Amino acid sequence: MPRTKIEKMDLGKKPGIIPALDISVGEAGELIQKLGEVEDYIAAYKISSLHAFEFGLKGTVAELRKFTEKPIIYDHQKAATDIPSIVEKQAKAAAEYGVNAFIGVPLGAGSKTLEAFVGACKESGLLPIILLEMTQEGATDYLKDATPRLVFDKANELGVTHFVCPGNKYDKIAEYKGWIGEGSIMSPGIKAQGGKCEEAVKAGTDYPIVGRGVYQAEDPVAAVKELYEQAKRGFESR
Amino acid sequence: MPRTKIEKMDLGKKPGIIPALDISVGEAGELIQKLGEVEDYIAAYKISSLHAFEFGLKGTVAELRKFTEKPIIYDHQKAATDIPSIVEKQAKAAAEYGVNAFIGVPLGAGSKTLEAFVGACKESGLLPIILLEMTQEGATDYLKDATPRLVFDKANELGVTHFVCPGNKYDKIAEYKGWIGEGSIMSPGIKAQGGKCEEAVKAGTDYPIVGRGVYQAEDPVAAVKELYEQAKRGFESR
Repeated sequence: MPRTKIEKMDLGKKPGIIPALDISVGEAGELIQKLGEVEDYIAAYKISSLHAFEFGLKGTVAELRKFTEKPIIYDHQKAATDIPSIVEKQAKAAAEYGVNAFIGVPLGAGSKTLEAFVGACKESGLLPIILLEMTQEGATDYLKDATPRLVFDKANELGVTHFVCPGNKYDKIAEYKGWIGEGSIMSPGIKAQGGKCEEAVKAGTDYPIVGRGVYQAEDPVAAVKELYEQAKRGFESR
Repeated sequence: MPRTKIEKMDLGKKPGIIPALDISVGEAGELIQKLGEVEDYIAAYKISSLHAFEFGLKGTVAELRKFTEKPIIYDHQKAATDIPSIVEKQAKAAAEYGVNAFIGVPLGAGSKTLEAFVGACKESGLLPIILLEMTQEGATDYLKDATPRLVFDKANELGVTHFVCPGNKYDKIAEYKGWIGEGSIMSPGIKAQGGKCEEAVKAGTDYPIVGRGVYQAEDPVAAVKELYEQAKRGFESR
């Protein structure tokens, strides 16, 4: 199964919705087929560590590639959290198994791990996406106050242009947007975790990541259309 | 494939060696067969995120269970690094697929994630193992100085008794041993990353985790025997 090429290593026109496929591989395939008619609003699909647990990345990507040519982002929940030699192997394996982009979260592992992750992604033709801050309560309990900035500075120096910022903290999105400039922001925490799509995009999010808000919707096509309309309004009012 | 029960949720007599199977599933099966004659020195086998990528956890555990009844520890490299609801799903899935123990590293994700991870492990009958500090250069770049203590206090409050401490930092092992007391310490960083097995065990490590030092050895059986002898000397000289 050939890997979809990412032109200029980005996710295409902004804004765009990223459905988080936090459902079984079979259900994900069905959802992707349903969403065929609104694929133009979709930037990429995000698959999860739970898919790797059940079928492996290899089996998961092969299955989903039957239904879509969109980029597939792998969220290890989380990766870039181990020693450099392991993180390099993770990126190379993900590329070999057909993934297009890989989310790295080096908050607990440090700058050498971040360096190894980005290096291995680039070498393997994967788009590296680096998280600056998480969404949940207590997320920063064990971190320095300056950590998002330290991570951004290092990632920026390594040429990273795609970042994950919390979609339910608009002031933080706006602050990070100031650092990231023309780069891209994708944000989870929209809908189920309280973030409003239009507000997040207005503050700087380019690609809202939505899980339950799409796959639990009675009409997922209508849900994507509505999210896209909100994102568009937010984007135009920046 | 029935899951091996862990009596009293521990890994058995101390010291004991934990081979880290950072090789293909096929090679891991071969190595486990070879090590049959020294299985008495082995506490558990550690499998990796790369196995999940290739075959899924389900396929990996089923394959290795052909050759051993020892506990299988899953190292997601790293887990307990996401929002609580995802971390709970990871633990439940790992248990369902036959894993016995799960290493959690909440450094980048905070106390609510740690709480969710330990809760889900216990509910699923998995032994939760919590990491306090990593081995690599730059590991603490983004963390508070007090982070290992904050993580220990929270984990201890949640009833966690098994911890991962860096096998190449003996003064840190000794310090953490003072907090952990009768609980258990397992340590990577032995051999390839510079840690000496006898020194680490003397300082407090109960279960040395050894990857390349076993699977790259010309004679893996002799390597396990030697590591065990060193561990025994260290244990007796505490």
